[in-house]
Amino acid sequence: MVIVMSPGATDEEIDHVVERVTSVGGEAFVSKGVVRTIIGLVGDIESFHHLNLRTLPGVADVHRISDPYKLVSRQHHPERSTVWVGSGDVKVPIGPDTFTFIAGPCAVETPDQTLEAARMAVSAGATVLRGGAYKPRTSPYAFQGLGEEGLRILADVGRRTGLPTVTEVVDPRDVPVVAEHVDMLQIGTRNMANFALLQAVGEAGKPVLLKRGMTATIEEWLMAAEYIAQRGNLDVVLCERGIRTFEPSTRNTLDISAVPVVQATSHLPIIVDPSHAAGRKDLVVPLSRAAIAVGADGVIVDVHPQPETALCDGPQALLGQELRQLAQAVRQLPSLVGREAATAR
Amino acid sequence: MVIVMSPGATDEEIDHVVERVTSVGGEAFVSKGVVRTIIGLVGDIESFHHLNLRTLPGVADVHRISDPYKLVSRQHHPERSTVWVGSGDVKVPIGPDTFTFIAGPCAVETPDQTLEAARMAVSAGATVLRGGAYKPRTSPYAFQGLGEEGLRILADVGRRTGLPTVTEVVDPRDVPVVAEHVDMLQIGTRNMANFALLQAVGEAGKPVLLKRGMTATIEEWLMAAEYIAQRGNLDVVLCERGIRTFEPSTRNTLDISAVPVVQATSHLPIIVDPSHAAGRKDLVVPLSRAAIAVGADGVIVDVHPQPETALCDGPQALLGQELRQLAQAVRQLPSLVGREAATAR
Amino acid sequence: MVIVMSPGATDEEIDHVVERVTSVGGEAFVSKGVVRTIIGLVGDIESFHHLNLRTLPGVADVHRISDPYKLVSRQHHPERSTVWVGSGDVKVPIGPDTFTFIAGPCAVETPDQTLEAARMAVSAGATVLRGGAYKPRTSPYAFQGLGEEGLRILADVGRRTGLPTVTEVVDPRDVPVVAEHVDMLQIGTRNMANFALLQAVGEAGKPVLLKRGMTATIEEWLMAAEYIAQRGNLDVVLCERGIRTFEPSTRNTLDISAVPVVQATSHLPIIVDPSHAAGRKDLVVPLSRAAIAVGADGVIVDVHPQPETALCDGPQALLGQELRQLAQAVRQLPSLVGREAATAR
Amino acid sequence: MVIVMSPGATDEEIDHVVERVTSVGGEAFVSKGVVRTIIGLVGDIESFHHLNLRTLPGVADVHRISDPYKLVSRQHHPERSTVWVGSGDVKVPIGPDTFTFIAGPCAVETPDQTLEAARMAVSAGATVLRGGAYKPRTSPYAFQGLGEEGLRILADVGRRTGLPTVTEVVDPRDVPVVAEHVDMLQIGTRNMANFALLQAVGEAGKPVLLKRGMTATIEEWLMAAEYIAQRGNLDVVLCERGIRTFEPSTRNTLDISAVPVVQATSHLPIIVDPSHAAGRKDLVVPLSRAAIAVGADGVIVDVHPQPETALCDGPQALLGQELRQLAQAVRQLPSLVGREAATAR
Repeated sequence: MVIVMSPGATDEEIDHVVERVTSVGGEAFVSKGVVRTIIGLVGDIESFHHLNLRTLPGVADVHRISDPYKLVSRQHHPERSTVWVGSGDVKVPIGPDTFTFIAGPCAVETPDQTLEAARMAVSAGATVLRGGAYKPRTSPYAFQGLGEEGLRILADVGRRTGLPTVTEVVDPRDVPVVAEHVDMLQIGTRNMANFALLQAVGEAGKPVLLKRGMTATIEEWLMAAEYIAQRGNLDVVLCERGIRTFEPSTRNTLDISAVPVVQATSHLPIIVDPSHAAGRKDLVVPLSRAAIAVGADGVIVDVHPQPETALCDGPQALLGQELRQLAQAVRQLPSLVGREAATAR
Repeated sequence: MVIVMSPGATDEEIDHVVERVTSVGGEAFVSKGVVRTIIGLVGDIESFHHLNLRTLPGVADVHRISDPYKLVSRQHHPERSTVWVGSGDVKVPIGPDTFTFIAGPCAVETPDQTLEAARMAVSAGATVLRGGAYKPRTSPYAFQGLGEEGLRILADVGRRTGLPTVTEVVDPRDVPVVAEHVDMLQIGTRNMANFALLQAVGEAGKPVLLKRGMTATIEEWLMAAEYIAQRGNLDVVLCERGIRTFEPSTRNTLDISAVPVVQATSHLPIIVDPSHAAGRKDLVVPLSRAAIAVGADGVIVDVHPQPETALCDGPQALLGQELRQLAQAVRQLPSLVGREAATAR
Repeated sequence: MVIVMSPGATDEEIDHVVERVTSVGGEAFVSKGVVRTIIGLVGDIESFHHLNLRTLPGVADVHRISDPYKLVSRQHHPERSTVWVGSGDVKVPIGPDTFTFIAGPCAVETPDQTLEAARMAVSAGATVLRGGAYKPRTSPYAFQGLGEEGLRILADVGRRTGLPTVTEVVDPRDVPVVAEHVDMLQIGTRNMANFALLQAVGEAGKPVLLKRGMTATIEEWLMAAEYIAQRGNLDVVLCERGIRTFEPSTRNTLDISAVPVVQATSHLPIIVDPSHAAGRKDLVVPLSRAAIAVGADGVIVDVHPQPETALCDGPQALLGQELRQLAQAVRQLPSLVGREAATAR
Repeated sequence: MVIVMSPGATDEEIDHVVERVTSVGGEAFVSKGVVRTIIGLVGDIESFHHLNLRTLPGVADVHRISDPYKLVSRQHHPERSTVWVGSGDVKVPIGPDTFTFIAGPCAVETPDQTLEAARMAVSAGATVLRGGAYKPRTSPYAFQGLGEEGLRILADVGRRTGLPTVTEVVDPRDVPVVAEHVDMLQIGTRNMANFALLQAVGEAGKPVLLKRGMTATIEEWLMAAEYIAQRGNLDVVLCERGIRTFEPSTRNTLDISAVPVVQATSHLPIIVDPSHAAGRKDLVVPLSRAAIAVGADGVIVDVHPQPETALCDGPQALLGQELRQLAQAVRQLPSLVGREAATAR
């Protein structure tokens, strides 16, 4: 931590800061410049936080130097982690050596639609099935998902097609029932900073897919992962799904750089959601190719047998020709960045 | 709703769109331009949504024309609403004729600190007391609030100082206990799109203070209010608290224009939080003045008797000279924009 | 300047940094923490820049501590400046003791339209006349202004109504002719970082109105002012006109906090442009009130006798009732923040 | 164009709009909904602009439907263009069938440094040489480039290594001398909306590399290209270089989606600049891979023989191992997306 004093700070004010720091067991190194004095702090960061250093007289600014997350940081855990999704002999890895393709319908609507979507997913090379049972919708008048019935349909289709399943949970009260039916719990972009929910999934005993908040910095996103980890669950996979900017031609702006940035600072796997980032079907294939090439550990995409009748996000669901192009990319590109397709093992 | 066809759309494609629209009881008006054809839709919007018009062949774009919110819209409720906070003979209005000053500590820490802060608030002219018992913190290692004990302290101090109280709730499971102790429930910026929580407070029978998500558009914010209203609670007060931009000199960018924009489209009251918007004590007074002048229905600010020892957001809490300046602004400015200070009645 | 070393930095790497710093005459203070070492630098910043410290082995990050601007900083010039616009006995101040109201048509179209707009401006209390002769338009097919003829019309109307004039210049080659005709040169938002143009107006011998780039940080904006100052011209007035965010209900988001932030760090006057910030006529009056209350040194607004036929930005030009409301705000509010209306003296 | 009337618009107001539209030769199709009326306009857009439709009584909003650019649009020019850089028998294509690798130093400093950088570029597979002679720097105290001397060094090194050259121009007065020495003129991000400069390069008779403004929408960027095209120069290559967002871990956020979005709406080639987007050397290789995979027509990267002593942007210049990785990506990946490396022909 570095404290920057105001240009006119007095010696008394500087001494007062040093005193406060040493009073909690820290060390303070003073560098007096011609215009400003800066004070470098060494010791336990948490104890410094309680000092409210910013409020002390003469203090102009306080810079944090070290990362605020610990359990998810690569600093104390240099090797990148692999998270396994599924159970028994249907376990699929998401991690540094593989490329994992997750696909399925945005919302579970009927057993038939879900099964058909799952078969499309399998034929394109997907090895994990996604499907929404609880849908967080901007409008209270929109389809909110089938709830527990949707969970049962999804679990059943997963068993029939041999795919582990992932679904979103939006209420801490639903975590137990969701964890009972599916293999991985998803936290959606709107709930990334819903700390009550993060703590609940941290205790659920299943891996978690944590989407980035649509306006979250990477540091805040890793702090959200830290909330889950702090409850004892380190099986967290991050998912970049676009951030909010001024550009209107895509629903969000896919922050493709987030992939290598996260991989440099955290050991957690990170995948990309090109469907929700762009909100446009025609961009899903090129953005998936970019995700593989940049080094992502996987992608998650929307597929639907009849996008015209989908109850949710039909316009971005892949079909036919596009799905075949994506399947081809997933077959060809990962080996060029030193990865193999992730399959159940 | 307006459908824009692609430049090369065929007559068959245009006819197909018209057919789909009329199949659900709508009317479609076709305007053929030299390059593009546009189709104006008249009828029930909800039924059009199920058509997934964007996925139809030949469709380039779909523009929504009318607002997606209903209960909170000024269209069917032209008069601006007043929300009353408190009970018995301690009820304070927030609405178009008054200016309501809400103040208190960011976090309830001890009975003494809360009482002292409440007295500061009263002396500065505040008529509603704020105080946090459940704190949503970015770090799982930071002080998370006193919980139920904090609620009791706040309620007790409110009674002793004659101020109605407002506090944040972060988990749907806590809504009943919070509603039992305080007069108004606050939804924080991180939970603006936590729909499970919105529905829970919509059923709690107490007025709600709904902060804007730090990256929410005004339309999304009003849709969040609609979620609460749809559960039967129209006593919602909106709170502008800054949005996230690229500018680093303030914690967020206070979107002062949001006040007149909201007032033009919704009947709900809207107040401003200059403390959290700026994250800097020196900006609280000028931004509060701007809030009054722009026509806000109130402000909510942090005060703390000893900012140096505050467990939360000490650096932005007002004290002494600044609090007196704010008190003066609250006394003088509202009358110039046709309002009087809101007092219990 | 503070250098943050990587967690694994070796003693040799730390010594190498210290060596480089001392080799250019600086001092380096090393604070060794458990995890990281930080090095505080004292001495001439410019000489440190040439070291490319970020490229040295073991260096994780370099934080600049002091402001990069000098001539426009309040640090060496604590008193806030007043800039005078006009000549002879028609000189209007823009500065800390007054509130200056600038108005006029977005574009000079004809002598009659300009004169009529100037008379509207005068009747509303404006004491400086704005009008565009060179219009930077997003489309090459839009009206680009009357050029030199527009300058002559503006100067003539200024003389007839007794108002000093301000107009935008967009090409360094036009600076001399513009400076010959008008009293103040405006740099538009799109040209804030057009350094060739900034240097040209820095040498023109007339005060400059420098609009904030629509995506510029306050620091970058002050650096643009520094470009002008560095050429010998300290008569620079800053103009906040909204920044680009994700919110679509206004053309830009007026960053009202920029006013007190700039006033805390720079001695230059700062005014607000509510017309271009909002792009909506109905917001101009409330935003102008907010600008006065927050402590701005002035406002600049669009007026046009017939907005329906305006060749540029008609929808945001004030007329009739709104102009009267603005006139009233300009008469009443400034005294409450310790200012008087700025008049020619 | 579609006009949306206010909910309370009268028949007279609707008729008035129709009248104005037909008075300039347009057709107006009225769709009366229960709540709102919308009017679809057919005819010459430019003539509608002069009507200031937004100012007419009863009009709530005006939506533009068609793209505002013409010459650069794919609508009237469906085939994607190839731009050739260089002259005589050293002409390198940038277009849909090839992948063009441009490299060189951020700034031309000395003949030796430039030659060495050019040789690094060649050895990595680059076929066009970049180098800055006029540097737009945020600080007036920073190195501003060698000017004309830099142009001569760059041209000389280009001849000796057999590479066509590209350099930035920042002042319309410098366009002729720059066009005389180099093969392609670059417009930097800060000057994307410097219309005087765009018009000057539009008349210079050399291809133009147009960087995206750091806060420009894709539509505004294409309008900047239209400015150049309107002066008779259709040899424009677009360059995505990151946009400004709230994320601090990279200097800008590379908008990788811009590549397929631009390719869908414009026939102009588009390349990516990963060095300036990220501002971090460690991201240049992964982002270059992503650029190839997403379908970009090329990349432009910084190389420097001694980044430690670079006068500009040293920390992002590639060297050694990273340059070899990039060379490998440029050799292997383009063929997977149906392209070959672009060489002089």
